[in-house]
Amino acid sequence: MLLTFDHGPIRELRFNRPPVHALTREFLSALREAVEAASSAGFRAIVLSGTPGRFSAGLDVPLLLTLDRPAIAELWRELYGVFRALACSSIPVVAAITGHATAGGIVLPIFCDWRVAAQGDFKIGVNEVQVGIPLPPVIIAAMRRLIGPRETERLAVSGALISPEEAARVGLVDELAQPDQVIDRALQWCQGRLALPANAMALTRQVSRADLVALFDSLDDELTRVTAAWWTPESQSTLRAVVERLQKKKSS
Amino acid sequence: MLLTFDHGPIRELRFNRPPVHALTREFLSALREAVEAASSAGFRAIVLSGTPGRFSAGLDVPLLLTLDRPAIAELWRELYGVFRALACSSIPVVAAITGHATAGGIVLPIFCDWRVAAQGDFKIGVNEVQVGIPLPPVIIAAMRRLIGPRETERLAVSGALISPEEAARVGLVDELAQPDQVIDRALQWCQGRLALPANAMALTRQVSRADLVALFDSLDDELTRVTAAWWTPESQSTLRAVVERLQKKKSS
Amino acid sequence: MLLTFDHGPIRELRFNRPPVHALTREFLSALREAVEAASSAGFRAIVLSGTPGRFSAGLDVPLLLTLDRPAIAELWRELYGVFRALACSSIPVVAAITGHATAGGIVLPIFCDWRVAAQGDFKIGVNEVQVGIPLPPVIIAAMRRLIGPRETERLAVSGALISPEEAARVGLVDELAQPDQVIDRALQWCQGRLALPANAMALTRQVSRADLVALFDSLDDELTRVTAAWWTPESQSTLRAVVERLQKKKSS
Repeated sequence: MLLTFDHGPIRELRFNRPPVHALTREFLSALREAVEAASSAGFRAIVLSGTPGRFSAGLDVPLLLTLDRPAIAELWRELYGVFRALACSSIPVVAAITGHATAGGIVLPIFCDWRVAAQGDFKIGVNEVQVGIPLPPVIIAAMRRLIGPRETERLAVSGALISPEEAARVGLVDELAQPDQVIDRALQWCQGRLALPANAMALTRQVSRADLVALFDSLDDELTRVTAAWWTPESQSTLRAVVERLQKKKSS
Repeated sequence: MLLTFDHGPIRELRFNRPPVHALTREFLSALREAVEAASSAGFRAIVLSGTPGRFSAGLDVPLLLTLDRPAIAELWRELYGVFRALACSSIPVVAAITGHATAGGIVLPIFCDWRVAAQGDFKIGVNEVQVGIPLPPVIIAAMRRLIGPRETERLAVSGALISPEEAARVGLVDELAQPDQVIDRALQWCQGRLALPANAMALTRQVSRADLVALFDSLDDELTRVTAAWWTPESQSTLRAVVERLQKKKSS
Repeated sequence: MLLTFDHGPIRELRFNRPPVHALTREFLSALREAVEAASSAGFRAIVLSGTPGRFSAGLDVPLLLTLDRPAIAELWRELYGVFRALACSSIPVVAAITGHATAGGIVLPIFCDWRVAAQGDFKIGVNEVQVGIPLPPVIIAAMRRLIGPRETERLAVSGALISPEEAARVGLVDELAQPDQVIDRALQWCQGRLALPANAMALTRQVSRADLVALFDSLDDELTRVTAAWWTPESQSTLRAVVERLQKKKSS
């Protein structure tokens, strides 16, 4: 589900769960372990990438709808585990957003150090509300430090999908690049970081991200509430309707 | 002082205290009650609107200068009551800023969910300092979540009046519209919200606005200080000079 | 090291330590005293200025490398003392950034009320990391209130030097002016503030800057850590390499 490419001291973790790199418990678990392993193995930066045209569509809703309560609880725990691994990584993590990045697909980059997105006719956004899922508080808090409370309220509550250009304008992504240049640009950004005096960089990075790390101090209650929200009648019926619509679209 | 128009599930509260929809204790009291009543009556969103060219000029200073201490204390209590009703409303509230919106006239929208303003030669701004009134802390705090501490410091301390275009650029309003389209655009925004899965929207909205709601946790001391500030020699003399200037302008 | 020009109620403190107005303990001490003395002497606003093309290059690294531990500790104490004097000044302080403003040279303006910078081919930025010094937490916190956490993380960690135009775009400076107009514009801004009702302005300014002032509540531990960071092998070797490079450039 994850391809690994090493570029000297930079490890690229490329999503490999076609067609839309949707997140499952196994995928999340592999991703968290790969992020943690990279710094243990001596790599000095990480790039998360997708494939041309697609970064990730977020949680694999059709699959999730077949899971029971313990499995859903485990899935959310793993998802929060990935958020924490990205936010608290001791080495910089860059998201190379190679295409569409919706729901969890744009949430992962929010916890990274930097985000470069492909220009073009791609959709980006936290559309959780659109599919009947309240956006979890830790995501809202992390978005606020990137784009401020006003734009966060707008995008989170509406669940709007926006273009890469608008995402760059509001600060949800940091830079745009030609689609075939996105991964190169991410690597280049990492190389810039690695060229800096290492201690000074690491300490300044730690202080600059301390508020993000602090979000993970005590999330047990939140995780319980977020997991419970999955099972509300509204969430279940909306998610099922979304999946049916997608399947009709495919079969037609 | 308030006209009510119902557009299906959306209740519009249109200011009706010509010529400038200046705020009195009675007006504020009616407004607070109308905001609270709308959700009780089953409406699902509220639009606050003014008349063509004028949203509101804020507090009715000429009238206020005739009031005694208990009446002024009551007025500020009611004003804070409206702030709280808007910030804590269980249903979205949109400000349809149909024209000039100065002092309290732009402060009310700051506590709403969204703000659309008429393009044109209109003035927008928290000009309280210009008329000798320190801008209350709760307003400064609410502005900071919309436009950040730097722009808030600039606009709050200078009391500058700015154009709708500049207000949109800094984020004091969210969108501009042709003057005759402002109320329609506000209704349209509400319809967008109402089309969303209701629980997911409401919960995400609650988390996104929790910092705004928290401002109202303990404001008793602040209200005492803000009320006292009205009676300082500087405030009194500046307010009287402003009113005299306005009256000369009218009679000339 | 500091020239004083009085423009009615506004005192201009012009840096005078050619060629780059680099900061020493004596310079910082003089600056702190001058800022504190200005309000005691009845001035109502302060302008900090440099000379054409140069605001300040920050700490005088070549000189600092000759100092022992007590002298370095004293220097950092004085630097923090200047930050505090600017942040907590009872009268507005404007930075007239007349040219290059790097490291400590742009940090001083961050604690001021307002910043106007010369247009042109000048460099602005907190490049501390580039020269091996972790950017102190109080500076990161003060930057966040000007430009938000995302841009702060980018500029602080990378140590990037940017143009005045980019500095204005992100909000690190508030306005640009022709080089020969920078000091005039700063004075004009002060006059605008002084024309306002004084109490209303002062109280609103106090509330708007309370978060900045609060940063100075307990900084003893931070000061100890920041001073210790100066003596790490990485900082020492990077600083020495930077100074050697500068000296070669001069002698060639």
